[in-house]
Amino acid sequence: MNAYSVGLVGITGYAGMEVARLLAGHPSLHLVMACSRAEAGKRLGEFYPFLEKLPGADVVISVFDPAKAAEECDIVFLAVPAGTAMGMTVLLIAMGVKVVDFSADFRLHDQRVYEEWYSREHSAADLLKKAVYGLPELYAEQIASARLVANPGCYPTCSILGLYAALKNDLIESGGIVIDAKSGASGAGRKAAVPPLFCEVSDSFRPYGLPRHRHTPEIEQEVSILAGREVRLSFNPHLVPMNRGMLSAIYATLKNPCVTADATRKVFSETWKDSRWVRVLPAGSLPETRYVRGSMFCDIAVVTDSRTGRLIVLSAIDNLCRGAAGQAIANANLMCDLPMETGLNIAPTV
Amino acid sequence: MNAYSVGLVGITGYAGMEVARLLAGHPSLHLVMACSRAEAGKRLGEFYPFLEKLPGADVVISVFDPAKAAEECDIVFLAVPAGTAMGMTVLLIAMGVKVVDFSADFRLHDQRVYEEWYSREHSAADLLKKAVYGLPELYAEQIASARLVANPGCYPTCSILGLYAALKNDLIESGGIVIDAKSGASGAGRKAAVPPLFCEVSDSFRPYGLPRHRHTPEIEQEVSILAGREVRLSFNPHLVPMNRGMLSAIYATLKNPCVTADATRKVFSETWKDSRWVRVLPAGSLPETRYVRGSMFCDIAVVTDSRTGRLIVLSAIDNLCRGAAGQAIANANLMCDLPMETGLNIAPTV
Amino acid sequence: MNAYSVGLVGITGYAGMEVARLLAGHPSLHLVMACSRAEAGKRLGEFYPFLEKLPGADVVISVFDPAKAAEECDIVFLAVPAGTAMGMTVLLIAMGVKVVDFSADFRLHDQRVYEEWYSREHSAADLLKKAVYGLPELYAEQIASARLVANPGCYPTCSILGLYAALKNDLIESGGIVIDAKSGASGAGRKAAVPPLFCEVSDSFRPYGLPRHRHTPEIEQEVSILAGREVRLSFNPHLVPMNRGMLSAIYATLKNPCVTADATRKVFSETWKDSRWVRVLPAGSLPETRYVRGSMFCDIAVVTDSRTGRLIVLSAIDNLCRGAAGQAIANANLMCDLPMETGLNIAPTV
Amino acid sequence: MNAYSVGLVGITGYAGMEVARLLAGHPSLHLVMACSRAEAGKRLGEFYPFLEKLPGADVVISVFDPAKAAEECDIVFLAVPAGTAMGMTVLLIAMGVKVVDFSADFRLHDQRVYEEWYSREHSAADLLKKAVYGLPELYAEQIASARLVANPGCYPTCSILGLYAALKNDLIESGGIVIDAKSGASGAGRKAAVPPLFCEVSDSFRPYGLPRHRHTPEIEQEVSILAGREVRLSFNPHLVPMNRGMLSAIYATLKNPCVTADATRKVFSETWKDSRWVRVLPAGSLPETRYVRGSMFCDIAVVTDSRTGRLIVLSAIDNLCRGAAGQAIANANLMCDLPMETGLNIAPTV
Repeated sequence: MNAYSVGLVGITGYAGMEVARLLAGHPSLHLVMACSRAEAGKRLGEFYPFLEKLPGADVVISVFDPAKAAEECDIVFLAVPAGTAMGMTVLLIAMGVKVVDFSADFRLHDQRVYEEWYSREHSAADLLKKAVYGLPELYAEQIASARLVANPGCYPTCSILGLYAALKNDLIESGGIVIDAKSGASGAGRKAAVPPLFCEVSDSFRPYGLPRHRHTPEIEQEVSILAGREVRLSFNPHLVPMNRGMLSAIYATLKNPCVTADATRKVFSETWKDSRWVRVLPAGSLPETRYVRGSMFCDIAVVTDSRTGRLIVLSAIDNLCRGAAGQAIANANLMCDLPMETGLNIAPTV
Repeated sequence: MNAYSVGLVGITGYAGMEVARLLAGHPSLHLVMACSRAEAGKRLGEFYPFLEKLPGADVVISVFDPAKAAEECDIVFLAVPAGTAMGMTVLLIAMGVKVVDFSADFRLHDQRVYEEWYSREHSAADLLKKAVYGLPELYAEQIASARLVANPGCYPTCSILGLYAALKNDLIESGGIVIDAKSGASGAGRKAAVPPLFCEVSDSFRPYGLPRHRHTPEIEQEVSILAGREVRLSFNPHLVPMNRGMLSAIYATLKNPCVTADATRKVFSETWKDSRWVRVLPAGSLPETRYVRGSMFCDIAVVTDSRTGRLIVLSAIDNLCRGAAGQAIANANLMCDLPMETGLNIAPTV
Repeated sequence: MNAYSVGLVGITGYAGMEVARLLAGHPSLHLVMACSRAEAGKRLGEFYPFLEKLPGADVVISVFDPAKAAEECDIVFLAVPAGTAMGMTVLLIAMGVKVVDFSADFRLHDQRVYEEWYSREHSAADLLKKAVYGLPELYAEQIASARLVANPGCYPTCSILGLYAALKNDLIESGGIVIDAKSGASGAGRKAAVPPLFCEVSDSFRPYGLPRHRHTPEIEQEVSILAGREVRLSFNPHLVPMNRGMLSAIYATLKNPCVTADATRKVFSETWKDSRWVRVLPAGSLPETRYVRGSMFCDIAVVTDSRTGRLIVLSAIDNLCRGAAGQAIANANLMCDLPMETGLNIAPTV
Repeated sequence: MNAYSVGLVGITGYAGMEVARLLAGHPSLHLVMACSRAEAGKRLGEFYPFLEKLPGADVVISVFDPAKAAEECDIVFLAVPAGTAMGMTVLLIAMGVKVVDFSADFRLHDQRVYEEWYSREHSAADLLKKAVYGLPELYAEQIASARLVANPGCYPTCSILGLYAALKNDLIESGGIVIDAKSGASGAGRKAAVPPLFCEVSDSFRPYGLPRHRHTPEIEQEVSILAGREVRLSFNPHLVPMNRGMLSAIYATLKNPCVTADATRKVFSETWKDSRWVRVLPAGSLPETRYVRGSMFCDIAVVTDSRTGRLIVLSAIDNLCRGAAGQAIANANLMCDLPMETGLNIAPTV
C-alpha cells in the first residue's frame, strides 16, 4: 500500500485530537505536520500524553505555513473554525495540496445561505463549486476525484444518514420533519469557557441554540436533494452529560400510515445492506451511543407509530469519529485512492 | 401548625428514598411508619445512611399491615408497583386512611384504557371515580377534599405543565403534538438488573420504550381535557446519563404561525404568574435540569420557529421530587389542610 | 428570632453560588448585598436561574463598596481569591463589619508559613492574631466572639475532622501520616479554563498538585495543635469526575497495633456522640460522598488493619456545603448568637 | 502470520466483552467459540450490538463443552469467576488446550494463601506449579512456554508495574508501603445488583473492601519476589464514578530521603526504556486514566516528597484492557509465538 503524508491544522480541538488518535493506527496516512500557533514548538506527544510511544508523537507542532504544507503534505486536514478555514483553503488549493476542511466554509452550495446563517461574507465563493460534500455514503465517487472536500457537520451526518432510506424510498412526507438531536459535550469544542465546565454539564441536560442552529441549512440542503424538492425542517439540539456520542430522534409523517415497522425496517435494511458502517438494528433494538463510541458506525432504528401515523428514526454516531475526524480520514482515503475504510475498521470502545 | 402522621409503603425505591429525604425537613408531616418486606427490622437510618441524625432515622422498617397503618397514620404514601398498589389502597381506604398512590393504578379515569396499556385487570375500578389526579396546579381544590389521590407520573407532570398554557390559551393545534422526553436514570427505578448498571448508562444516551410508553395515555387524558377534545400524541422517552432530572421538548403547530416568541412567552408568563413553582424563563434562557434539582420547580421556555410554524416548549423538572415524592407531599399537604408548599420551598441543589 | 443582613462578595464561584442556595432557606440570615465586578447590574435570579422565586433572587449584583457593605450588612462573606481577601478584610473590619473569609488569607497563624506556601506577602499580618479558625467543632466559643473568622479549606475540614478523635485520644503516632484525598470538580472553581472542561474530567481520574498542595500547612497547623507537637504529613489530592463531594483516606500508625476496630470505633463514637453533624459509621459501613451531598455532615469510618498495624480513617464531606458555604454560615450563626445549626439541618440530596 | 483459534468462556462480563472488542481487530487470533449458559443460541452480534459488522459477530454463543473446545480452539480464555475456573482449567489442560485464566484460581503460588483469602479449597493444586503469572513485563519468557497462564488482577497489574522500578533499583524500603487504589465501575462486574446501579455510583465516590481486599496477597506475592523478602502492605481500593480506568497512588519510604525527583524519575525511565507499554511521565506531568483508556499503556509518574521522605508513585491503566482482556491477549500472543504486541498497539480512546 502506498503511504501518504498528512498535515493537520488545528490540533488543540477535539476533532484534531481525534485525527491524531486515528492516524496513529492508520497504515497508509502518516501525520507529518501538526499546526497550532499557541502550542508551536512542543512535541505532539508532549501536548497529548495519550499519544506517547505511538506514531505521530514525535511530530513537532508548528505554526501553519502553506509553503511548508505544500512541500511536506499530500493532503491537509483543516480543523479550524469556520471563517478561518476558507483563507487557508485558498492558499493550499493554489499550491496543489488536497484539502479536507472540517469547518462549514464549503459545505453549503449557496453562498447566500452561508452568509445568512454564518453572518460573514464568503471570500472564496468560486471554490464552493469545486468543493464536494464529504458524506461517503452519498458522494464517494465525487470525493475520490475532488481536491477540496467539505467534511460534513456531526449533526448533519447523523440526520442525513437517518433520513436517507426513508426519502430515497419515498416512505415519508418531506414536510413537517422534526429532528430532536442530542450530543455529547465534545461537540461544544475545547475552549476555555464556563458553560462547558464539568460542573455545568455533569448530571444535567439542556437544549441549546434553538431554533436556529447553524447545522439546519446543511441538513436542509442535503435532504432537499434527496427529496427532490426544497425542504424546511425543525432541528433542535441538546447537550448530554457525556463526552462523545450523538443521537437524533427524527419524526416524520408516513406516506402510508398503515405500513408496519417490519416492512419499513426491511426497506431500510435493503437500502444499507452493502454499507460497511450503517447498521440497521433488528426489531426490538434501539441505538445507544456507547455502541458506536470511537467508531465509524451509524446505528439506525426504525419505529413506526400507527396511532399517530409517524415514522420515528433513531440514528446514532460518534460525533468525533464518524461526525468529524474519522469521516475526514474516509474522505482522505478516497482522495488518495485507498479503500475508503482503510484504518477505520475500529470496534467501538464500548 | 398541626402535625400529621405519615406512613410510607415501599421505601427501597428512589421515590421512597426521596420521601424520606423530604419528610426529614417537613415541619408538619412526620414519618411514623416505613414498610418493606425485604428490609423489615432495620432502622431506616441503617438502611439509608444519609438519613442518620435526621428525623425519621429511628423509624423501624416493618412489613405492611393495613390495621397498623390505620392505627398509626393519618395518611399513607404507596410507593409500590402498579398492580400492587390497588389492593393496598382498597384496604386503607376501607379503614379510613387517606392515600397518595404513586403508581398508575388510579391515574386513568377509563378502566379499559388502564387495562389495555397495563395488561392487567383493574380490581378496584369503583375507586377510580373517587380518585383525584394529583397535579396541584390543575386540581388543588379536588385534591384538598380527596381521600385517594393518584400521584401523577413524572413524564406526565413535565409534559402537562409544559403544554398547559398553550392549550388553555388556544395557541396550538391539538393534533400532531410530539413530545421528545429525556429522564435521568433514577426514573428506571432501584432494581437489581443489568441495563441500569453504571457502565451501561454512563457516557451514553439511548431511547427506550418507543412507541408505546405507558405514560402516553396519562398525558393524553389530561391534554384531552385541556384541549376539550380527544388528543393523540407521540411520546418518546430517552435515558440520560444523569441521576435526577427530566426535560421534555414539546413540538406543536402554532395556530398563528406569525405569532412572536415574545408574545407567546407573555401568555405563558401571565398564565403562571401566581404559581409558586412554575417558572417561565425569560427570552434567551433555556431550562437545564440542574436548575431544578431536588426541588418542586418546573422551568419552562417558549421557543417559536417561524420557519416551520412551530411552537417548541422546553419543560424541566426533577423527576424524583416534583415528579414523584415532592408532588405527593404537596398533595398530602392539601389533603391535611396545610398550605400546599409546606416543607417544599427547597432551593435546587445546583 | 432576630434577622441579620448578609453581604456576599464573590458570587460567581461555586462557593458563592452555594451561599446563595443556603441563604435562600435560612430563617435569620438574609442576603442583602451580592458583589461581582463582572456581573454588576444583573438581578441575582437572572445570573442564577435556579434561584428565581426564592429569597435573594431580587438582590441586584453590585461592585464591592466597603462603605455600602458597612451600611447594609451585619456580616460579610468574602468568597474571593487568597490575596484579594486580605485587603477587603482590613477595610471591612475597620468599618465594624464582621467578616467570614473563605480564602486562606487568615487561616495560618504563622505569617512566614503563609508567605512561603502562597508566594506572596501578607499585608494584614496584625489581623492574623485576631482571626479565628472557623472549624466549629473545635473553636465554637472563640468563633462566637470573633469579628474575623477564617473559614477552613475543604480538604482541611475533611482531614482534621477525620483525625480529631484519633489524636485527641492518643490512638495514633503523629508521625508518618498519609492523607490520600479526592475531590469533586467544583473544588477546582468556576473559571474559564481547559483542564476543568467536562470532556477533560468526565470518565477519568487524576491526581494533581502533588506533593505541595497549599492545604498541607493548614492541616499540619491544626493537627500539630491536636497532637501537641509539630507534625509533618503527606497530603495528596485527586480529582474525581463528580460535581460535589470529598473523601479522604487517612493512613496512620496505631500506637497499639493490637487494638480492634470495634474498640477504636467506640472511642470515635464517644468523642462525637454529641455532635450534630459528625456521624461515625457502624461496623461494615464505609462513607460515600452522595450520603453527605449538599449537607453539613461529615461521615467517618474507622478501619484497623492488624496485618500492618495501621488505622485507616475514611472521612467524607460535601466540599461546597460543609467545606465552604455551609461552614461559613455556621460560623456566621455563631457570630450572630444564633444556634450554630440554624438553617443548616438539611438532609443530603442523595 | 499464522492464525490461531480462540475460545472465550464467560462472554457476559465486562472482561469477556473487552475480549470480543479486541479480537475483532486482531490479525491472528480469531474468536471461534463463545460460551455462556444464559445466552446460548444467540449470535454474538445480537448479544453485543456494538460488534455487528465486525469479526466475531457471527459466532453463535454455546454452552461450554471441553471436548468441543479442544476440537475447535488452540487456546481458551476463561473469563469466569474464581472457583469455577479451576475445574474448567483441569479439563482443558487435560485435553491439550492452552488456557489463559482471568480468575485468581492460579495466581497465588501458595495454596494455603489462596484458601485463606478466597475461603474455598483449591481442587487443582498440582496445576499451581505449572501456572505462570501472566504479567508480560516480568515473565514473558515463562509465558511463552506455558500451557496455563494466570492472568493477573487489574489492581495487581497497576500496583506491581508501579512498584517494579523502585524495588528493582532498591530505592525504597519494602516495609510500610501503602497503596491507595481507585477503579472505574466496570471493575465491579456486570451483575444484576443494586450497588453498581448508575444512581448509586454516579456523582459519588466511595472506598470498598477495606482492609482485606483479595488482590492484597497477589500484590504481596509479586512484590515480595521483587524485594527479595516477604512484604506486607496495605492495599485500599475505591470506586470512581467512571466506566473504565484505574489509578493507584503508592506511598513508600525512600531509602535515601534526599534523592531528587529527577534522579528517581531517571531510574524509572531507564528501567522501562525498552518497554512498549510502560510510559514514565516527564516532570510536571501526572497520569490521567483517560490517557490510557482502552489501551495497553501503563502511565507512571514519580513524585518525591522531601518533607516526609516519601516516594509517591502514581500508576494508571485501563482496568479492562491492560488489567484483563488485553493482557490476556498479550499472553496468548506469547503462547502462540506471535509478537507480544500483535493486535494491541491501540491508541487510547481519549
